Amino acid sequence: MSNAPTVVDLLGRRARSGKSEAIREILAATATPGMLSMAGGLPAPDSFPVGELVEATQAVLGAQAAAALQYAPTEGVPAMREVVAQLATRTGAHVDASRAMVISGSQQGLDLLARVLLDEGDAVALEDPSYLGAVQTFQQAGARLLAIPGDRDGMDVDALAAELERGARCKLVYVVPHFHNPTGAVLAPERRMRLGELADRYGFLIVEDDPYGDLAFEGVRLPSIDAHTDRVVRLMSLSKTVCPGFRVAGLTAPDWLLVELANAKQCADLQTNTFGQHVLVHLLTEPGFLTAHLSRLRTIYRQRAGDLAAVLADQLPWLTFDHPRGGLFFWCAIGDPSVNSGGLARIALSEGVAVVPGEPFCVQRDGSRHLRLSYATLDRAQMREATRRLDAAFDRSRRTTKE
Amino acid sequence: MSNAPTVVDLLGRRARSGKSEAIREILAATATPGMLSMAGGLPAPDSFPVGELVEATQAVLGAQAAAALQYAPTEGVPAMREVVAQLATRTGAHVDASRAMVISGSQQGLDLLARVLLDEGDAVALEDPSYLGAVQTFQQAGARLLAIPGDRDGMDVDALAAELERGARCKLVYVVPHFHNPTGAVLAPERRMRLGELADRYGFLIVEDDPYGDLAFEGVRLPSIDAHTDRVVRLMSLSKTVCPGFRVAGLTAPDWLLVELANAKQCADLQTNTFGQHVLVHLLTEPGFLTAHLSRLRTIYRQRAGDLAAVLADQLPWLTFDHPRGGLFFWCAIGDPSVNSGGLARIALSEGVAVVPGEPFCVQRDGSRHLRLSYATLDRAQMREATRRLDAAFDRSRRTTKE
Repeated sequence: MSNAPTVVDLLGRRARSGKSEAIREILAATATPGMLSMAGGLPAPDSFPVGELVEATQAVLGAQAAAALQYAPTEGVPAMREVVAQLATRTGAHVDASRAMVISGSQQGLDLLARVLLDEGDAVALEDPSYLGAVQTFQQAGARLLAIPGDRDGMDVDALAAELERGARCKLVYVVPHFHNPTGAVLAPERRMRLGELADRYGFLIVEDDPYGDLAFEGVRLPSIDAHTDRVVRLMSLSKTVCPGFRVAGLTAPDWLLVELANAKQCADLQTNTFGQHVLVHLLTEPGFLTAHLSRLRTIYRQRAGDLAAVLADQLPWLTFDHPRGGLFFWCAIGDPSVNSGGLARIALSEGVAVVPGEPFCVQRDGSRHLRLSYATLDRAQMREATRRLDAAFDRSRRTTKE
Repeated sequence: MSNAPTVVDLLGRRARSGKSEAIREILAATATPGMLSMAGGLPAPDSFPVGELVEATQAVLGAQAAAALQYAPTEGVPAMREVVAQLATRTGAHVDASRAMVISGSQQGLDLLARVLLDEGDAVALEDPSYLGAVQTFQQAGARLLAIPGDRDGMDVDALAAELERGARCKLVYVVPHFHNPTGAVLAPERRMRLGELADRYGFLIVEDDPYGDLAFEGVRLPSIDAHTDRVVRLMSLSKTVCPGFRVAGLTAPDWLLVELANAKQCADLQTNTFGQHVLVHLLTEPGFLTAHLSRLRTIYRQRAGDLAAVLADQLPWLTFDHPRGGLFFWCAIGDPSVNSGGLARIALSEGVAVVPGEPFCVQRDGSRHLRLSYATLDRAQMREATRRLDAAFDRSRRTTKE
């Protein structure tokens, strides 16, 4: 046994380099008893369509058990691919089911894109800050990240154009066009058009990750970027609009790429769970269900965002934020330059409230003055208590700094 | 638009190299109307515990909807990790839930192992032939495959020892110890012990992929290899013992590796679907369910294997095979040297029967004389018709060769 390799000898290069446990730690902390969480991107459990799902699961196990419990094609159950194509078409250019596939959550879509397209050193442009899971996936694939600044109207596409003009080559441009995570920004219509022109001109693909587009408080959403160019891969999570528990999402892509993504998916997990696909087909083809359900969701989230805005304005004068227009998050700046958001978040956990610091979302810019707060899962009394705890953590942070 | 890169410019190295569509093509062909399939590894749909699943889904949506439809930890729902640990302990060394995780099918386990452990050029030893999905996953990861011969008692572990003695270094040794896919072999007890000794001596990890161990026709199964060494990763599919449709499987691994696998899984798909985990916890903790269900499955499969053996012996004198002792497959040799199994399988599709040729399972040895036949999904009349069609394809194959 003396000549057995050590543990590290067995690990591959990717596992030996950078760790990326941030999302898991956030999810783990929210399970602590008594913890009030404004941390994760968890949707409101009272928004889940439980009654409809009872009916859907019974119908599926009644009429289609043999198919719904069996293996299915890697690209997805045909009826679910139709549903994905219809969801895509509803909010963008016409997409046929042959260009739609089912994935095990949008995260898998990011991972499959990284596998199929990215070699060590290839560049991916993304807004800074960006969704943590995307940042980590592209980094683990060995990609160089090209950080593009943004504002309330999303990625500064002129800044991207300037980089490309100067010779930057990127294979992918990653955007969350609606209610960006973490900033809440909505990519402006003229920027979408310009981004499409740049994709055609420079040959990159746009990854349009859109989990929150249907959660616009006023119910109005802009068309998808594929209205402007074919060079778009759309990731359509159902985690925020139905529920996360089935891990079923949709992806649309150009034909040539869909074939490659399906090959990669075959190695990744063979297929997405058949049962969840059948249940979602039943649910989403129920006439009128989606429209009514989304309307209900918007009412819940508009109400809660309003509640949190009022509580924060009332209780935390040291925090500033833009009132979000949809999605799940407040992106808040800390007014006291002596307080670091990473340290604050750690102290906050010990006070019994989970919040996410800005740093892990950031590529180049400084995230140490920002917090991301979710308002989705707390009622107004819990929000008051959570902000009271956060304020106590803030006081402790300042005192720690001064000592 | 003239300077836009071509499609191939965007593809990464892995996607540009070897295609691996064999499994997907097999699954696709079985969907053709009128096709009789002995091809896929599909379990018998009449074996699915539909009544129990109706009850389990209702119970879960009744009492635990908010949790069962929400996000869950990357390593798995805690109660499902307990179930995985119990399933592992039932058939091997004691495993604690902290060393168990939930994965999206065993295929994902192979993929996560490849991500975490394998760099370009690292060696993986496996029996030749081996399970197609494993061969493809290790190849896509850039591993060198060290093909070890086998027989009815599984991998020739002395041949592996000789390779290691000669200086071959491998990180992983992949085995399907019970009712090997495609050969049906069972790894002999003394070989398990010897394999454990070699793992300790040379420091490699054993990947023990065991989807069929509970499908021993006589109900007797050997203990897991982890009885002999700690250097074992077990993959415990539930696709053949419950159903494939939930895409929920178990994995056990040494502590240091479990952490890395969870990190990789976070990028791959965040987590396995929560709903399926809750349903399976309900089902598998029901007192007496598993024992009774497995007994029922063994009766079904023993009967069907006997039927196919009788039909093949009666109708296809040009095919020889060892009668399997469990699992889903017959590994058959074609008696006529002029007939190639790849060509035969293609002609068979046009005759309306799907079978799998030996070639894709083989690393170095010649698979062109073998066919893998599944008996799981056909009744006796369908078996008779399927073999009649296969015989017609065989006649056409011989005529084609002579022309």
